[in-house]
Amino acid sequence: MIALRTIALMTQPLVTLDDVRAAAKNIAGIAVRTPLLPCSWEDGLYLKPENLQPMGAFKIRGALHALASLPAAVRAAGVVTESSGNHGQALAYAGRRLAAPVVVVMPDVASPAKIEATRGYGAEVVLVPPAERSSHVQRLVNERGLTFVPPYDHRDIIAGQGTIGLEILADLSDVDTVLVPVGGGGLASGVATAVRSLAPHVTVIGVEPALAADAAESLAAGELRIWPTEQTYRTVADGLRTNLSALTLAHLRVHLAGIVTVTDEEILSTVRVLARSARIVAEPSGAVAMAAYLHRRDELPGGRTVAIVSGGNIEPGLLARVLA
Amino acid sequence: MIALRTIALMTQPLVTLDDVRAAAKNIAGIAVRTPLLPCSWEDGLYLKPENLQPMGAFKIRGALHALASLPAAVRAAGVVTESSGNHGQALAYAGRRLAAPVVVVMPDVASPAKIEATRGYGAEVVLVPPAERSSHVQRLVNERGLTFVPPYDHRDIIAGQGTIGLEILADLSDVDTVLVPVGGGGLASGVATAVRSLAPHVTVIGVEPALAADAAESLAAGELRIWPTEQTYRTVADGLRTNLSALTLAHLRVHLAGIVTVTDEEILSTVRVLARSARIVAEPSGAVAMAAYLHRRDELPGGRTVAIVSGGNIEPGLLARVLA
Repeated sequence: MIALRTIALMTQPLVTLDDVRAAAKNIAGIAVRTPLLPCSWEDGLYLKPENLQPMGAFKIRGALHALASLPAAVRAAGVVTESSGNHGQALAYAGRRLAAPVVVVMPDVASPAKIEATRGYGAEVVLVPPAERSSHVQRLVNERGLTFVPPYDHRDIIAGQGTIGLEILADLSDVDTVLVPVGGGGLASGVATAVRSLAPHVTVIGVEPALAADAAESLAAGELRIWPTEQTYRTVADGLRTNLSALTLAHLRVHLAGIVTVTDEEILSTVRVLARSARIVAEPSGAVAMAAYLHRRDELPGGRTVAIVSGGNIEPGLLARVLA
Repeated sequence: MIALRTIALMTQPLVTLDDVRAAAKNIAGIAVRTPLLPCSWEDGLYLKPENLQPMGAFKIRGALHALASLPAAVRAAGVVTESSGNHGQALAYAGRRLAAPVVVVMPDVASPAKIEATRGYGAEVVLVPPAERSSHVQRLVNERGLTFVPPYDHRDIIAGQGTIGLEILADLSDVDTVLVPVGGGGLASGVATAVRSLAPHVTVIGVEPALAADAAESLAAGELRIWPTEQTYRTVADGLRTNLSALTLAHLRVHLAGIVTVTDEEILSTVRVLARSARIVAEPSGAVAMAAYLHRRDELPGGRTVAIVSGGNIEPGLLARVLA
């Protein structure tokens, strides 16, 4: 019953390995081909440092592929999205590289630094009251002929993020376990699709903050469970406050072995470990996979393990406090 | 006269492109193949993040190649070096990977953290009073049959560090300028040899702290000028306090276009820029090339520029202070 209900919500086919391979061609030369970093202090652990992407997060992959997949005339007419974080910056960066005008609708309460960063990558930023974001995007689609590029609920976005999975297997063919952060589920859907299609024996496990564990609940229930923003906004991992969509849940149900949750304290102490021991700057959302490795070892299958560090756009004051 | 004197000091041929290519084979699969990171906030600037190496610095390249180049029986008998920093840790890491016992002679005033790190990579650490370091290394060579692996004054070390130059050209064939930190000169010698041999039109420029500008003075004089440790130990860039050797000076005279110096204040503020904008943790020595790009633009030729971030082993308290 539950499974049928989920499938009924799904009107699109799942992303395939071929889709991810097509995305790899579209992002080559613009997204950074990040290396796998062996952790000398944790035998068998490797980091995939997506904080090294030009705008600081894996989101550049999906944004590039989504833009590249649009018909040329549609792309030239411009795109719009709604984001106060990495997706908006990624779309802005990708748009500049692919000659697509980009409009990012942001809440007027967004931090000046995030507004500045998004503008800095060349996007037009439109500030609206938080409650009017979606309707304003719709208006821009209607009035200006822009195409909406969602942050995760889109096959091209999922395929783009999945290129990380291809790279992990290319660099470490005998990997046993992949740990991937779960917010809206685009990253986890893409990575799990790529990894499991190429290497079905590999275990892919999602990680999310205990304070925004909607994906764990949705997977356990077999249907989408929406957590209200009052709940999810409690976690410091601001990139993982989003709920799954029907599309990402469908991918995760097929490809993900399970979900592990970590506390905010564990997330922040892992940001410190990553700076001191791996010499990379991670944002809280980017540290959850490594936090699971450090603090939930008994819930993980073990073996050669890759933890995806999904991004590094941490507020400078928070980074200073974490390292003090 | 001066040139003749320098040449007279030199008893070895310069490292060649073929030497560097041989080193690339020896380090493959153990040293990380670091990517070039385009700086989205500085058009035309790329970082080569050697802080991502397993022990946090480029030194792993030279150490691996030097060990791999030893006859098997010599390697198995063990090696020794004198280092309170990255070279000792690099040799320890390389020794563990290549089954070579490693002894690192450290001053008994070295920080417990550095002693711990060196031991952590599997080396035997011998603590001696600072003045007895060299004689103790000599004694270990004589009594235990260990082979001395110097930190930079060695053709294999130079060839190993030069692999960075090969990778830069492979990733950015139309690079115009390469900025490389200069301490003992092993990194600069290797990188300049590789880059200039493959692409003679590229300008390679060394960068050193103004407080340890012995290489600038030596190059201007055309002969080795030794700065006493009382002077060079003033700079916060502890990896760049060393003087050139005759061997590295000979390489730099042939391949380097010039040297630029930066202040300690500029170095530390660049550590902050790298953490905030490039999301990587650099040690002060690792930040000098980027500091030159930010603060000495008028002394640089411009064009597409690569700044080598040579390492990330910064003392945690200093990192916290710099970011506060």
